[in-house]
Amino acid sequence: MIWGNRIRLTVFGESHGPAIGAVLEGLPAGETVDLEKVALQMARRAPGRDSSSTPRKEADAPKILSGLLDGRTTGAPLCAVIENTNTRSGDYENLRDVPRPGHADYTAHFRYGGFNDVRGGGHFSGRLTAPLVFAGAVCRQILRQRGIAVGAHVLSVHGVSDTPFDPTDLPVSLLDDLASRYFPTVDPQAEAAMRGEIERARQKLDSVGGLVECAVCGLPAGAGGPLTDGAESLFSSILFGIPACKGVEFGAGFSAADLFGSENNDPFLFDKDGAVRTETNHAGGILGGITTGMPLVFRAAFKPTPSIGTPQRSVNLKSGAAEELAVKGRHDPCIVPRAVPVVEAAAALAAMNLL
Amino acid sequence: MIWGNRIRLTVFGESHGPAIGAVLEGLPAGETVDLEKVALQMARRAPGRDSSSTPRKEADAPKILSGLLDGRTTGAPLCAVIENTNTRSGDYENLRDVPRPGHADYTAHFRYGGFNDVRGGGHFSGRLTAPLVFAGAVCRQILRQRGIAVGAHVLSVHGVSDTPFDPTDLPVSLLDDLASRYFPTVDPQAEAAMRGEIERARQKLDSVGGLVECAVCGLPAGAGGPLTDGAESLFSSILFGIPACKGVEFGAGFSAADLFGSENNDPFLFDKDGAVRTETNHAGGILGGITTGMPLVFRAAFKPTPSIGTPQRSVNLKSGAAEELAVKGRHDPCIVPRAVPVVEAAAALAAMNLL
Amino acid sequence: MIWGNRIRLTVFGESHGPAIGAVLEGLPAGETVDLEKVALQMARRAPGRDSSSTPRKEADAPKILSGLLDGRTTGAPLCAVIENTNTRSGDYENLRDVPRPGHADYTAHFRYGGFNDVRGGGHFSGRLTAPLVFAGAVCRQILRQRGIAVGAHVLSVHGVSDTPFDPTDLPVSLLDDLASRYFPTVDPQAEAAMRGEIERARQKLDSVGGLVECAVCGLPAGAGGPLTDGAESLFSSILFGIPACKGVEFGAGFSAADLFGSENNDPFLFDKDGAVRTETNHAGGILGGITTGMPLVFRAAFKPTPSIGTPQRSVNLKSGAAEELAVKGRHDPCIVPRAVPVVEAAAALAAMNLL
Amino acid sequence: MIWGNRIRLTVFGESHGPAIGAVLEGLPAGETVDLEKVALQMARRAPGRDSSSTPRKEADAPKILSGLLDGRTTGAPLCAVIENTNTRSGDYENLRDVPRPGHADYTAHFRYGGFNDVRGGGHFSGRLTAPLVFAGAVCRQILRQRGIAVGAHVLSVHGVSDTPFDPTDLPVSLLDDLASRYFPTVDPQAEAAMRGEIERARQKLDSVGGLVECAVCGLPAGAGGPLTDGAESLFSSILFGIPACKGVEFGAGFSAADLFGSENNDPFLFDKDGAVRTETNHAGGILGGITTGMPLVFRAAFKPTPSIGTPQRSVNLKSGAAEELAVKGRHDPCIVPRAVPVVEAAAALAAMNLL
Repeated sequence: MIWGNRIRLTVFGESHGPAIGAVLEGLPAGETVDLEKVALQMARRAPGRDSSSTPRKEADAPKILSGLLDGRTTGAPLCAVIENTNTRSGDYENLRDVPRPGHADYTAHFRYGGFNDVRGGGHFSGRLTAPLVFAGAVCRQILRQRGIAVGAHVLSVHGVSDTPFDPTDLPVSLLDDLASRYFPTVDPQAEAAMRGEIERARQKLDSVGGLVECAVCGLPAGAGGPLTDGAESLFSSILFGIPACKGVEFGAGFSAADLFGSENNDPFLFDKDGAVRTETNHAGGILGGITTGMPLVFRAAFKPTPSIGTPQRSVNLKSGAAEELAVKGRHDPCIVPRAVPVVEAAAALAAMNLL
Repeated sequence: MIWGNRIRLTVFGESHGPAIGAVLEGLPAGETVDLEKVALQMARRAPGRDSSSTPRKEADAPKILSGLLDGRTTGAPLCAVIENTNTRSGDYENLRDVPRPGHADYTAHFRYGGFNDVRGGGHFSGRLTAPLVFAGAVCRQILRQRGIAVGAHVLSVHGVSDTPFDPTDLPVSLLDDLASRYFPTVDPQAEAAMRGEIERARQKLDSVGGLVECAVCGLPAGAGGPLTDGAESLFSSILFGIPACKGVEFGAGFSAADLFGSENNDPFLFDKDGAVRTETNHAGGILGGITTGMPLVFRAAFKPTPSIGTPQRSVNLKSGAAEELAVKGRHDPCIVPRAVPVVEAAAALAAMNLL
Repeated sequence: MIWGNRIRLTVFGESHGPAIGAVLEGLPAGETVDLEKVALQMARRAPGRDSSSTPRKEADAPKILSGLLDGRTTGAPLCAVIENTNTRSGDYENLRDVPRPGHADYTAHFRYGGFNDVRGGGHFSGRLTAPLVFAGAVCRQILRQRGIAVGAHVLSVHGVSDTPFDPTDLPVSLLDDLASRYFPTVDPQAEAAMRGEIERARQKLDSVGGLVECAVCGLPAGAGGPLTDGAESLFSSILFGIPACKGVEFGAGFSAADLFGSENNDPFLFDKDGAVRTETNHAGGILGGITTGMPLVFRAAFKPTPSIGTPQRSVNLKSGAAEELAVKGRHDPCIVPRAVPVVEAAAALAAMNLL
Repeated sequence: MIWGNRIRLTVFGESHGPAIGAVLEGLPAGETVDLEKVALQMARRAPGRDSSSTPRKEADAPKILSGLLDGRTTGAPLCAVIENTNTRSGDYENLRDVPRPGHADYTAHFRYGGFNDVRGGGHFSGRLTAPLVFAGAVCRQILRQRGIAVGAHVLSVHGVSDTPFDPTDLPVSLLDDLASRYFPTVDPQAEAAMRGEIERARQKLDSVGGLVECAVCGLPAGAGGPLTDGAESLFSSILFGIPACKGVEFGAGFSAADLFGSENNDPFLFDKDGAVRTETNHAGGILGGITTGMPLVFRAAFKPTPSIGTPQRSVNLKSGAAEELAVKGRHDPCIVPRAVPVVEAAAALAAMNLL
């Protein structure tokens, strides 16, 4: 994948190959990058933290190959490589013949004529989101220097919901707090209930999906453009690049379909400092593809992890027979908490391309 | 806007300027284009048909400037221009100072330093979807030669719903029927109920939004790619380019967030002809960004038309005072029926880029 | 063709179709565009001026369809269309079977499976440089507001040479003077000698080629980038898009191959105002793909017009027999003078993409 | 740098950073890649072979991180990394203040605000051509499977010339022979004379430039496109990305400017097998930007190595004083022989984008 216009991201690697990585082009030179802050974001995405995720443990320590010198960007392409250390390729031998439901095994087979690396999902593995988080972690530091903050939370897991963002009032302190946590929710009790839901799925050898809600605050009014040059096209094009993402909505999103115009339109007003803002923010901070200056708010829907221990029906492409399949190996009963930093990273990359 | 990779679309024009248009590059040469079929799609999008839409009447007759000779594509860029004939610019004088809620007036002002053409919404007008429909109408004819059909329906208007598609069983005849109608619904009674809802909004000087569901059938398995090269990124990037679109989901989409993996995964099976298909189609025909060969199904959410006769609160950017605003002029109480051919066009353009 | 990154140009049209044109995207809003100055550049490129060019007369009056309001750019795509009025399609009937040497007839036939528009060269006609000149004429006005001037001259025609530019001392007044003339040379006597050479070719029913030398002055130091992001890649990619251009060199160019490093390196020095400049300018204003602040100077080589009245050997693709062919119609014995404004336009477009 | 459309190349790295590398996207899956053949091409570019180049020795062994499994491309991005092992950063301390004439020190300083990595030229080092050669070496193997061969020779060094290619008769065996040699010339005696010229420059602490001539044989007729989509734009955009390249010409190139049309046009004829070819090949295998099926032939001009031991005049940007500078370190008195495999690599990458 190569994505972006002003800031361009190249992502490479296969789950059980030597390494995965990212090249980030077009960054301004002289920007300070704190690698410890990058490492925190990498850790939020990494597996193995607790029973809500896979017990695989991966260090995911990015090695910077270029573009950073003495803690500052040089303006040259920034490349980071993450070695694949904890791989058990034996788990995946059967995939060429019997594709796992809900995975890319079947479709990649046709796309690449059977030459794709199937081990661990190869280039389609969720592991490929690690370089995305790396790149996003760099971008969010640069954004922060310009007064722009990114944060997200688990809005729901299998029907258990967190308190939604108030899109007209999103303190940076809230976003910062969320962006430092492993299972970020606005309501602390939501986390417990969601963890319970995930644990039940795990015990049933099943999995659950959920929603991530994300906000970008501090964007100036006037960024973006009309039609496909708009902020929604930009953000959605990278959000749908996150494996398992099947829906994206901005502001009121799908629920806007049920509103009257008089309800959905956000009235303009002057705040007490004389600045223009909107009273509500059904637009999610975007009108005509261009930022309003209000928080840019969106939600992304993630399907349940397709890898489940429960037996599933599939086909044997070689023998031509129906076959039953139970996915072995170590998998997340719910990837939504780990998807939060990935969504934030995607948002940071998109926001950098807006500026 | 310039959009696309294999097939590239340039759209230009402002609502009250001399003309709008499109340039379509990368089309194969020698493809037959039936301009009457193109005109039908243009007519489906055009305003003025009945009380569910604006009484403005526009011919929207595309004039082909290049790329087509004796009814066949020449391989050179295909350019069509649509003149703006029925414009009443007087209606829009006040917009520079008092931005309309829900419109791009405010954001475009900042983006273009006040130099944008505000008449009729300028380059942000829904009218700019006419060239999109033109381009899509050309693409859908080429797709059809390859056995690929596109069709959509109004899935809901302000909470009144049509029967959803069965994503495992979508006869081409259904898609063809929908793609020839002005208010396409699967259930004929849904149309009547929706029209009633729209008429109520119109009488209240208000507007309503809704959902469009679209399917692309006949795509081969193996089209698309991983991460941001995936079909979801491709389709969403053009769908969100349609004015008023605020949400996009594929297959089970947002509802997948509430399912178990064992429910959401689509089992593979051999059909009676020995071909592989999936029993369900929660994936919406896409796994790992690549087509499965099942119908590609998605939904797009459209907000209510922001132009409403009901008075709204806004600000006067010049005087610094709060101001009330009632949008005059001729507007759609609901753009969803007219959005259907636009969504189909976007889908056809995206599908061409998948091949 | 779609070209460019920051400023993107789409060119469409076929020589004997209804019209040709250009869409220019990404221009800053609020820039003044003087259409009379644009018309002057169009006139410099237009045929029919005197016996050094084809007697075809074309008005080449661009009609602006969008992106310009009250003489200023709106920030929306700027589209201009030029009608094809003076076409005699009968002249070209035989081309499908017997390709003209030196033309794209043969290659386009394979590229487009015989469906390309062959009339007047179709999309491969030199006429397609008219939209390029339009776009460049807009850009050069914007550049001029930023203190950047573009000018070029006929450096040679069939071995008859003009005085080359002094790349260390290029007054804007010289560039302005050249950029307003139809047969621009630094040395007035060169024009007369070159016209003689062209007239001799015309009388022999033959044609001649030549070189154009162009300079962009006023570019700041630090524009461009490394490797393929460099100014040379940018400029050459559009210059080689001009039909008949077969060579491009920057600064000392090919002659640098014969120099010692100690001769070719340009010593840095402080001028009397304390500004850094180079004593010589063999680099043509570009080091490492990035501008030095010295004049950016390059040369483009144009082959002789392939259309000649002299009989040539070709093949009949239908009959399989060798055939003799004399190109009828009205053609330029030398396109180099008319290529000067095209080269300037390309340079202006490239320079806009550098900023 | 990110370059290309169908096949996209990302190059990263700085001369004295941890590593340099390349990511190649869009390769077909299932292609065999022989890493020993890749290593041969890397070796041809690597320094330290003999006195005609720098005595620095670099292993330049590419480590494949992704995209290759069991000797075949997987279809995922192919990433290779080359470690920087033999670096002496102390040599370059002074460059921030006193820019070397002919180098990017001065221009990169402005481009990156002084934050660029100056050690060894950083991202502007000729060392960045190593990943280019890697990528080209992969592409040339894939091209060869399709009957397409690439080869180049040193056409001249400081005025000493080799026998030029006959562009109508280029046996694959000649290209293969050239593509395996370290100082490839058609005429063996030319090599000796050129080496003498280089040795004289070396002893004078000076450097010399030269020309590389390259051919791509076996391309089918009909590849490429009009205007900036043409083969010349494609090839030149990557060729000018090679550091020190200051001129590119196709076929007769600059010398076409001195020819009559009747001389320059290539007559079409049927060969003894009934295939169409041209008697001469002044077009260099390209008409209207599209391949003719004849050998695609071009020349690239390289300036003399800017690093010379001879004292040169420069400025001290910090002190504001004129200063004399003699470049220390280990440098090539002539980079042209090492540029040959780089030019071939660029040609292979461009040819892959034509198919």
